[in-house]
Amino acid sequence: MVKNIALLGSTGSIGIQTLEVIDGLGDGYKIVALAAGSNYKLLASQVKKYSPEIAALADESATNTFQEMIKGIPCHFEQGRSGQLLAACWPSAELVVLAQVGFSGFEPLLAALKSGKKVALANKESLVIGGEILQRSGLLDPDRILPIDSEHSAIKQSWTSRKPEEIARIYLTASGGPFYGMKSTDLHKVTPDDALKHPNWQMGPKITIDSATMMNKGLEVIEAKWLFNLDINQIKVVIHRQSIVHSMVEYIDGSILAQLGLPDMRAPIQFALTYPERKVSPVTAFSPYDTTLTFTEPDYVNFPCLNLAYRAANAGGTMPAVLNGANEVAVALFLAGKLAFTSIPDLIEKVMDLHDNIKEPVFSDVIEADCWARAKALDTGAMLRERKY
Amino acid sequence: MVKNIALLGSTGSIGIQTLEVIDGLGDGYKIVALAAGSNYKLLASQVKKYSPEIAALADESATNTFQEMIKGIPCHFEQGRSGQLLAACWPSAELVVLAQVGFSGFEPLLAALKSGKKVALANKESLVIGGEILQRSGLLDPDRILPIDSEHSAIKQSWTSRKPEEIARIYLTASGGPFYGMKSTDLHKVTPDDALKHPNWQMGPKITIDSATMMNKGLEVIEAKWLFNLDINQIKVVIHRQSIVHSMVEYIDGSILAQLGLPDMRAPIQFALTYPERKVSPVTAFSPYDTTLTFTEPDYVNFPCLNLAYRAANAGGTMPAVLNGANEVAVALFLAGKLAFTSIPDLIEKVMDLHDNIKEPVFSDVIEADCWARAKALDTGAMLRERKY
Repeated sequence: MVKNIALLGSTGSIGIQTLEVIDGLGDGYKIVALAAGSNYKLLASQVKKYSPEIAALADESATNTFQEMIKGIPCHFEQGRSGQLLAACWPSAELVVLAQVGFSGFEPLLAALKSGKKVALANKESLVIGGEILQRSGLLDPDRILPIDSEHSAIKQSWTSRKPEEIARIYLTASGGPFYGMKSTDLHKVTPDDALKHPNWQMGPKITIDSATMMNKGLEVIEAKWLFNLDINQIKVVIHRQSIVHSMVEYIDGSILAQLGLPDMRAPIQFALTYPERKVSPVTAFSPYDTTLTFTEPDYVNFPCLNLAYRAANAGGTMPAVLNGANEVAVALFLAGKLAFTSIPDLIEKVMDLHDNIKEPVFSDVIEADCWARAKALDTGAMLRERKY
Repeated sequence: MVKNIALLGSTGSIGIQTLEVIDGLGDGYKIVALAAGSNYKLLASQVKKYSPEIAALADESATNTFQEMIKGIPCHFEQGRSGQLLAACWPSAELVVLAQVGFSGFEPLLAALKSGKKVALANKESLVIGGEILQRSGLLDPDRILPIDSEHSAIKQSWTSRKPEEIARIYLTASGGPFYGMKSTDLHKVTPDDALKHPNWQMGPKITIDSATMMNKGLEVIEAKWLFNLDINQIKVVIHRQSIVHSMVEYIDGSILAQLGLPDMRAPIQFALTYPERKVSPVTAFSPYDTTLTFTEPDYVNFPCLNLAYRAANAGGTMPAVLNGANEVAVALFLAGKLAFTSIPDLIEKVMDLHDNIKEPVFSDVIEADCWARAKALDTGAMLRERKY
């Protein structure tokens, strides 16, 4: 039986690797929908290769050029935001891979879940911001959302119990990023180039900076809360420099199950695609011989983003949206050379301090909080810049 | 619903810890049968505490004294070998814990499985010797045999797939014992006292010596072959000095699942008792913070017992019985100060070389091979002694 797949974010890092995994899996997996943001050239070549039933391009300014490029291919085309949503609930798709970056992934996630699809989710922002809304809507079914993220995939794989009360806690592992062990006095001077050198993973710039600040792990903590319906206190972070143990689940009887593998995003992607089965993969297996694995406590003082995420998770409501929105702006300012590395958490904290949290938010509340946080972060960022440069 | 348990080998190390675990689990677990070898005093006090429906004592010379001690307690008593077998298939028991040491555990295992019981198996010799017979009889149902052994319990816990073809290989971890890193020139001089000091586990003397020679891991390799229906080449051994990762399962997609915990036999015992559920346990959970875990290749040259076990497993037939019988004699001779540590593998190898292997053995064949191997080991041991002391 063929598994029909809709892939949103097909031209990004996860999207490209998803197609690579599907190529490797061979028959049995068919791309029926492809959606991308603005990279129309790559999308066009993907459409030519995979012949999906629908192609969607968010960037409307490229519509004409794109349509010209795929002329003659029997494929429905839809532009703009509505195209993304149509791809997310495309009738013949049973599994929707959501690989867009940022909060724009929330509405497609909602659309896919509401139309009864299984979702392979690489977009963490949608859960960070919209997790509470999804939970209240009863849409957070662990059997229908398969995380594409090495940590959450590891938790999913190590979660052998059907009973939530058998889980004591989970440990999300963190590599610590390129600046592990550094103090804030030195962190103040690091450049975007320094921060983009991740020791173990090849990823996009936004997530790489998030790894360096530890905000990535903070967002993953919030994501894990919703994915696995855990209390925030059940979610621990442990620094594991080698990125071999991708995360662990501790049961109430003291036993821990951990998932191990070489750092390769194709592994969690394939797990999500083939679940509940496993299939042969081109991913090189980890060989335990001559290996040393270390585990240490995170440095919450010099990397305050992690605590900001716990704070936002504890506050709930619109605060995680504010955390995420402020972080996206702060990272963009840092990458543009307009904010010091250590000012990223400062900026986020200031915006969070200023936020009037809305409990039990509806969709428009989180949208508004997100916009407010971005605007406030830009303003506040400008002030921080005046002080620090 | 109460789970009725028959415990054979109740006065040994595993038996005592099994009762401790049952005490901790509280209501819901009831001892209905207790069986022991010769420690009638301890068995009597256990009978008084747990009021089983049947008590069995193998050592017939203590029958009178024992019966005097439990006078007035409404408990059926059965002596000798038949008592052990009766306890193993006691009608009201649904789970039989087999915690005897040595090959004497085979017939009770067979009896328990034939009478439809679930078995929590701490007796590795019965699988090493009788695994092939059990498999041919269709009695090796992984859902009915729950290993009480940290390594096999770890494999069971990490085995999340229902499809054998999804398993690439398993890694059994080995602490390396007290003599890890030593060369045979030094190993030649070690004493029983040295060998009885295991770095991580508190166990009986036989298994502690087996840990020092690595034969314990060799027997576990054979045990794993039958428990999990694996090809012997799918079973790898990795030295892991810290005894935290108790074993690992590698899947065909390159993903590895591992089970971690502090070295505490109560953990696998409780897992076997509560399976498929998990319950709160007094076992301290492993905390990963400030931990270093190392994994290295075993030293097959200075610790040849491991290869002897692979050789026996590959040969099949009665050869594993010969490996086990010769090993039991060799260990006894070493503990009695009558054999050098390095002569343990020499002795076993010589006996294996002399054995005329019987393929597809029946029960009497393995009994005979076991007897033959013990006799041959005693003879050969005497000759080795003449040469080496």
